[in-house]
Amino acid sequence: MPPPGCSMIAAHLSHVVAMNLILLFEEDFTAPGQVHLHDRRLTHIREVHRANPGDRLKVGLLNGAMGSGQLLSLSEHEAVMRVELDSAPPPPLPLTLILALPRPKMFKRTLAAAASMGVKDLWLINSYRVDKSYWGSPLLTDAGLREHLLLGLEQAGDTRLPEVHLRKRFKPFVEDELPDLCRDRRALLAHPYNAEPCPSASNESTVLAIGPEGGFIPYEVEKLIEAGLKPVHLGPRILRVETAVPALLSRLFAF
Amino acid sequence: MPPPGCSMIAAHLSHVVAMNLILLFEEDFTAPGQVHLHDRRLTHIREVHRANPGDRLKVGLLNGAMGSGQLLSLSEHEAVMRVELDSAPPPPLPLTLILALPRPKMFKRTLAAAASMGVKDLWLINSYRVDKSYWGSPLLTDAGLREHLLLGLEQAGDTRLPEVHLRKRFKPFVEDELPDLCRDRRALLAHPYNAEPCPSASNESTVLAIGPEGGFIPYEVEKLIEAGLKPVHLGPRILRVETAVPALLSRLFAF
Repeated sequence: MPPPGCSMIAAHLSHVVAMNLILLFEEDFTAPGQVHLHDRRLTHIREVHRANPGDRLKVGLLNGAMGSGQLLSLSEHEAVMRVELDSAPPPPLPLTLILALPRPKMFKRTLAAAASMGVKDLWLINSYRVDKSYWGSPLLTDAGLREHLLLGLEQAGDTRLPEVHLRKRFKPFVEDELPDLCRDRRALLAHPYNAEPCPSASNESTVLAIGPEGGFIPYEVEKLIEAGLKPVHLGPRILRVETAVPALLSRLFAF
Repeated sequence: MPPPGCSMIAAHLSHVVAMNLILLFEEDFTAPGQVHLHDRRLTHIREVHRANPGDRLKVGLLNGAMGSGQLLSLSEHEAVMRVELDSAPPPPLPLTLILALPRPKMFKRTLAAAASMGVKDLWLINSYRVDKSYWGSPLLTDAGLREHLLLGLEQAGDTRLPEVHLRKRFKPFVEDELPDLCRDRRALLAHPYNAEPCPSASNESTVLAIGPEGGFIPYEVEKLIEAGLKPVHLGPRILRVETAVPALLSRLFAF
């Protein structure tokens, strides 16, 4: 039996089990149910999928339905597919994820990992231990964020684009916005001192904050707790944020 | 209250909360309780910790006890510390982790992530979808493996070096060794088709196998199931192995 929330298409395509989804955009459609692709997705179809006309591929419309596409033709310049979009994307995690902005290389991977696990609401905040230069990274432009979010969606087989909110100033965010974000939700701070074990699998609406390398400083921890977050730990080991995100999400949600 | 298994030293050092552990080796000791460091650890102390004489740092003897070290002197050439090693490292995960060998860049990160989460027994196996070139990676030499395992231990605050076993031939491994590895243990295959939900938090001795990008092929899945593994899934999304490892381990164990 396919896992809950898994489309029947995934069961049909099990012989090409874990190939990446090809994300489609409105502008790809030349006629109802027909798309022409020219960009990195063409390259991916030729060089990674190594597909041939007649092959079926997993496809999905950004922020829309998923399904399968049959490759009608393939050249150096263009891939043409007939697509049927008849399944819902997997359910999003009921999570607001707040990260002290990681350093660029780790952020890139953390962003894609979060997107691949179903995070749809991501807040990037400042901290004493966030180097100011990180805020200047091209990853934080709309295009930069979008690129890595799309990679995460393609990996996972999902189409709903996450929203990303940037908050360069810690104090106004924590005082003015965070208490409202936390209201009537399970609100947690991954900070392994004076902490309870991280609770496990539920489908509760959750707010989770994770600090920078080295952790939030005591002043910041106090403000976050004041805003409503409860410190939790994942055992005696300290994890990098790119490891902590999947570890925490998998602990917190029953997907 | 510090998390179970967390040394009291960690509580004392909470003001330098998530700094990396400095791993010590027998050859660093010039006298009982005194070490001289000259290598990348000297650089790390100077440039990352930016420590000064008198400062205390988290230290641990490889495969031995953990504790704290007081920096006695620091120059361009040498760091001298007085160390007290009086705490046990965190308990290992009761896990045999079997990975189809990932491509080198992802393998490097996956290795460090697994080490940082307490994996002590790692088997790297072949699969149809493992490119033969991966087996030639310098990461697979003793030195290459050790380097990234040590990074994982330093990140997490742990000293027990994991063992890594390389199995370039799938069939002999699965037929001759895997059934014995699985005997009397919870034995799982992360392969999300015809699968049950991944079980959650217990401290059972476990064998977990994870396939390559694109998954194990049907023949391999059959052989793994024959050997005793049961397919499990983590929901409707497909994760990269570097994301799947922390997600699965955090789901499976109550640390």
